[in-house]
Amino acid sequence: MMGGATITGATRLYAIVGDPIAQVRSPEVFTQRFAEQGVDAVMIPLHVPADRFDAIVPALLALGNLDGVLVTVPFKARMAAHATRVGVTAATIDAVNALRREADGSWTGDMFDGVGFVRGAGRKGERIAGRRVTLFGAGGAGSAIGCALAQAGVASIDIVDTDARRAARLVETLTRAFPRCAFITARGVRDGNDMIVNASPVGMRPDDGLPGAIGRLDPSTLVGDVVITPAPTALIRHATQCGCAWVDGRDMHGGQVDALLAFFAGAARAGNASAPDAAH
Amino acid sequence: MMGGATITGATRLYAIVGDPIAQVRSPEVFTQRFAEQGVDAVMIPLHVPADRFDAIVPALLALGNLDGVLVTVPFKARMAAHATRVGVTAATIDAVNALRREADGSWTGDMFDGVGFVRGAGRKGERIAGRRVTLFGAGGAGSAIGCALAQAGVASIDIVDTDARRAARLVETLTRAFPRCAFITARGVRDGNDMIVNASPVGMRPDDGLPGAIGRLDPSTLVGDVVITPAPTALIRHATQCGCAWVDGRDMHGGQVDALLAFFAGAARAGNASAPDAAH
Repeated sequence: MMGGATITGATRLYAIVGDPIAQVRSPEVFTQRFAEQGVDAVMIPLHVPADRFDAIVPALLALGNLDGVLVTVPFKARMAAHATRVGVTAATIDAVNALRREADGSWTGDMFDGVGFVRGAGRKGERIAGRRVTLFGAGGAGSAIGCALAQAGVASIDIVDTDARRAARLVETLTRAFPRCAFITARGVRDGNDMIVNASPVGMRPDDGLPGAIGRLDPSTLVGDVVITPAPTALIRHATQCGCAWVDGRDMHGGQVDALLAFFAGAARAGNASAPDAAH
Repeated sequence: MMGGATITGATRLYAIVGDPIAQVRSPEVFTQRFAEQGVDAVMIPLHVPADRFDAIVPALLALGNLDGVLVTVPFKARMAAHATRVGVTAATIDAVNALRREADGSWTGDMFDGVGFVRGAGRKGERIAGRRVTLFGAGGAGSAIGCALAQAGVASIDIVDTDARRAARLVETLTRAFPRCAFITARGVRDGNDMIVNASPVGMRPDDGLPGAIGRLDPSTLVGDVVITPAPTALIRHATQCGCAWVDGRDMHGGQVDALLAFFAGAARAGNASAPDAAH
């Protein structure tokens, strides 16, 4: 059961901005977590009309009692320009989904969509480093996860997307940012790969199958899927049948909440999250 | 005990803006009242730095899920310019302490500091119409109460202020706005007056006495005091000793919350609050 928050004049604010906003879950989830931690703060939804975004955001960031911002559709790319500085992941893919106010009043932004996946795997005791990955989907989620996996030390990432040019662009971007990881475009799962991640929308419709031609998997393969509902997705069912460990959209979301709370608390610099060291 | 609010993406927002903000009580009070009414809304504190006020407020008013704003120190006068239209009281004294979003997205502002006093008296069953009033204090609170009393039909208001020019200016303003009520400046309580209101700061310090030379009062006199703490003030104690009915700062505050909730609910037009009919 969700507990309620008592809001006083001294309560600190975190906000999630989006258009539309009524569907977001973060106000409940974060307000509850703040209460559990004994932090006098709430997460409020802010409906920022898309056509007023660039006028409204600087005003919000000037509020004296707003300490953090989450960013959802359609603002993740546009918000990056409003950060004083951004972390490696955000700089690489030029999008942020969170900002925090620093002691000097400046704003640090970063992208945690992929970090949540890595943290979710970590919470299940799964090793990421050294894996050879096939990543389905080169959009926003795929880009963020590609960054996070490269930072977590995977050996290679093969990127599969129905839009071959989008896959090639992401290979180029990630290769520049993470020269020690091998990126290629691909059409399916390469022999010897031991991690498969779906960051495409395939699985969101009840009758969706697998995101690509994925055969029998070795039980050592780690399988991930960003799709939350309907659960389990065909890919997660397939992983279970093959005896593989898996990380689903729910795990990823839980991991991201942890990563965001650490970021808001200022602890991100020492943790798994990308360090905010790229000037913007 | 204050109940907690569950904040979801669909929760509607009301905000109180001020600088500083940590001391305000409205977030607790209004959030609790919304919950009691079954309204999915919360009142959040927004710390608007005074030097950024005119840049921040238009952005706030453009948010899609903000339905109302309360205004506290030092913004009551500056906020009036941001309303699409204002009520009679706000137009007369050129200050607002509340704004509500109308269905068309425009913002109606009004000043409820005085209406709260009139409502507080009404809740105690006290008649206001026809009274001959001595009002101590011609500042923000005194101006608002002068308006509200005139609108409630008092016969006359004698205005006492240590700053004689300020008292004279308020007499002039109120005479223009309410020609059927008699306003004069005064140095004390005139014989035959049957209502005394303190809207000055006298009473806020524990060793404060009465706000002026107030002798023995006829028990038919209605006594009011805007000062909330320390309670009871010397004036309220004096009223009790003389057998007079009284309305204290707490009553006034309770009356104002009722008036503001009615305003936010769109019911103010039919109630005691001043009608928002003055274009701005």
